Amino acid sequence: MRTQVGIIGAGPAGLLLSHLLARQGIESVVLEARSRDHVEKRIRAGVLEHPTVELLREVGVGARMDAQGLPHEGISLRFDGADHRIDFADLVGKGIVVYGQQEVVKDLIAARVEAGGAIEFQVSGVHLQDIETTSPSIAYVDAAGVARELHCDVIAGCDGFHGVSRHAFPAGALTAFDRQYPFGWLGVLAKAAPTHAELVYSAGERGFALYSMRSPEVTRLYLQVPPDTNAATWSEAAIWDELNRRLAAEGFTLNEGPFLERPSVTGMRSVVVEPMRHGRLFLAGDAAHIVPPTGAKGMNLAVADVRVLADALGSFFGSGSETGLDEYSATCLRRVWRAEHFSWWMTSMLHRFDDTDPAGDPFGRRLQLSQLHYTVSSRAASTSLAENYVGLPYGAAP
Amino acid sequence: MRTQVGIIGAGPAGLLLSHLLARQGIESVVLEARSRDHVEKRIRAGVLEHPTVELLREVGVGARMDAQGLPHEGISLRFDGADHRIDFADLVGKGIVVYGQQEVVKDLIAARVEAGGAIEFQVSGVHLQDIETTSPSIAYVDAAGVARELHCDVIAGCDGFHGVSRHAFPAGALTAFDRQYPFGWLGVLAKAAPTHAELVYSAGERGFALYSMRSPEVTRLYLQVPPDTNAATWSEAAIWDELNRRLAAEGFTLNEGPFLERPSVTGMRSVVVEPMRHGRLFLAGDAAHIVPPTGAKGMNLAVADVRVLADALGSFFGSGSETGLDEYSATCLRRVWRAEHFSWWMTSMLHRFDDTDPAGDPFGRRLQLSQLHYTVSSRAASTSLAENYVGLPYGAAP
Repeated sequence: MRTQVGIIGAGPAGLLLSHLLARQGIESVVLEARSRDHVEKRIRAGVLEHPTVELLREVGVGARMDAQGLPHEGISLRFDGADHRIDFADLVGKGIVVYGQQEVVKDLIAARVEAGGAIEFQVSGVHLQDIETTSPSIAYVDAAGVARELHCDVIAGCDGFHGVSRHAFPAGALTAFDRQYPFGWLGVLAKAAPTHAELVYSAGERGFALYSMRSPEVTRLYLQVPPDTNAATWSEAAIWDELNRRLAAEGFTLNEGPFLERPSVTGMRSVVVEPMRHGRLFLAGDAAHIVPPTGAKGMNLAVADVRVLADALGSFFGSGSETGLDEYSATCLRRVWRAEHFSWWMTSMLHRFDDTDPAGDPFGRRLQLSQLHYTVSSRAASTSLAENYVGLPYGAAP
Repeated sequence: MRTQVGIIGAGPAGLLLSHLLARQGIESVVLEARSRDHVEKRIRAGVLEHPTVELLREVGVGARMDAQGLPHEGISLRFDGADHRIDFADLVGKGIVVYGQQEVVKDLIAARVEAGGAIEFQVSGVHLQDIETTSPSIAYVDAAGVARELHCDVIAGCDGFHGVSRHAFPAGALTAFDRQYPFGWLGVLAKAAPTHAELVYSAGERGFALYSMRSPEVTRLYLQVPPDTNAATWSEAAIWDELNRRLAAEGFTLNEGPFLERPSVTGMRSVVVEPMRHGRLFLAGDAAHIVPPTGAKGMNLAVADVRVLADALGSFFGSGSETGLDEYSATCLRRVWRAEHFSWWMTSMLHRFDDTDPAGDPFGRRLQLSQLHYTVSSRAASTSLAENYVGLPYGAAP
């Protein structure tokens, strides 16, 4: 089998890349380890930054997002028992849309299927070959158990942080940069109508809590917990109790409701690998970098990566120019590092660090509080948060 | 002997307080351990933020500052071999004035002497008594060796970080917050005309360097060095060599010249004690808090403290109201913590940390670089730096 671009992974990165390539008349095949049902139900991120929203609209996959997504014009930072709203509309004239990653995945799969695009689900044994040549290939076993080989001009590794693509780089070709945070997020998805229109980032003595929502019927909530927490040790009652304590504020009531999935704990980590390209293999999204969820940047970075890659591949297949491909890694990494810094900054400002940590010792705690007060009271500082949160324009990341 | 306010320390805090009180008809006596000649020659800070400049003018001690000080409308952040100017005038419509702390001290002493104010130099054995009563006193030995006692209504401890005032607080009454930075600054004062009109904060692989000036004939330069550095181990040639390497940039030449004082190393530390008042003793300036010099905030915080204290004492002696005195500590600490955060932020962004430090490991280094690029390319971020550097308006610190 032959195609122009072999894409590993049917998450937002791989599917959007396939869609963007198809719009330019470039063929691709997407290979995915899981079933369609699985990827369409996998709960992940839920905040689309402004450039993501614009891009999805522009390329014709924004209709359901516009109908069902929840446009937000701000977020609140809650501390000292009060809300401090960061008014995105006023500060930067843009907003975000709350729309689950799995909904974006559904929309992209639907668009690809409708256009006759090739997506193979439930493949296994994926193995990348000859990536340093101009005719790389992907060996895999299809859903029916048949061993296959997909020959292509370029491979896009969009298979997430635990995927195989990154490991196809030869030893020494990649440098990894990482930071482990000393806590995790216990996440719950509850069938309960949101009681507050926007996300609330609450920083308090008992630790961080995030109040968010996925739809008018579903609330998404997170609690900062120790990183090695076994979610099963938290009873439903204990979770609601802790959420109520951490989110307590004048006039705020939390609607409770049954959990829609088992609560789970996500570790908080920042990782970037450089470069994002080796030979004819290009990494995009979580395959190359992960951010702690505090900045809501993960899926948005994946979208930004494949936008750059699709443009570069457009030039490559159109005119034979490799300039875009050569610049791909450096171009993406500027935005990646901006997002890493922003995510680290939000994480550092909002979480409760242990008092043995410089960020959590008495001096560090006072710095956090001064930073929070300053961030919500200075227009310049609020604008800085807002412009990063809604997403810097493509190409503007310094 | 009796006065209304006994002031310990003839630095900018104590002298300005005495001056501000005299303007309201309140008597004070300033006690200073060193000689007049010593305090008038002691080289310290050199950047006056906008509110400091305005205040000195407003209270009639700004004439020489206006004649001889160097007004600056920006600073440069130098990295990757290029300058990135933060244009204060454009961003916040305000600037700073470069004018040595010892010049401020000279002006204030001259003003106090002219007004017949009482300043006793070369006192020793200062001991604070009865600070929890309404009639505290200061026991001391005057320049002639005579033991004296100064009875007052209020004592202002303006005697710096190594002064005695803070130690008069009873055990347990003070909480100290501190942060030690893993480096010091090697400072040199050279008889050399500045070659660049504004301060240059240079962040590079070899460590931080600061290019500044004190007058059209005098350059003031700093090098980041290990904290335990013995300045004597640095030869004059080695210092110029290292300055030239760290400050290297297209079109930039460093004028060299003889050192005007022996180079010395200052440790980098942040300290805040809370509260700043106990009974009738009020701490102001370095006696209560120190900042690393990177944000140029030390003397400016001292000025801000005594402004609040002078107002509070005006109400106290005028109408008997203790409200201002009761609020003194909390009011000052908001600005102090803002300055501590800003100074920590500047220090963290600009210095080279050891790679065993989270701020200096490969991930931390990449965050520093992303932050530098963002700070100079985003108007919001530049404005945030600028508004802190030129000084938030009094009363505006969150």
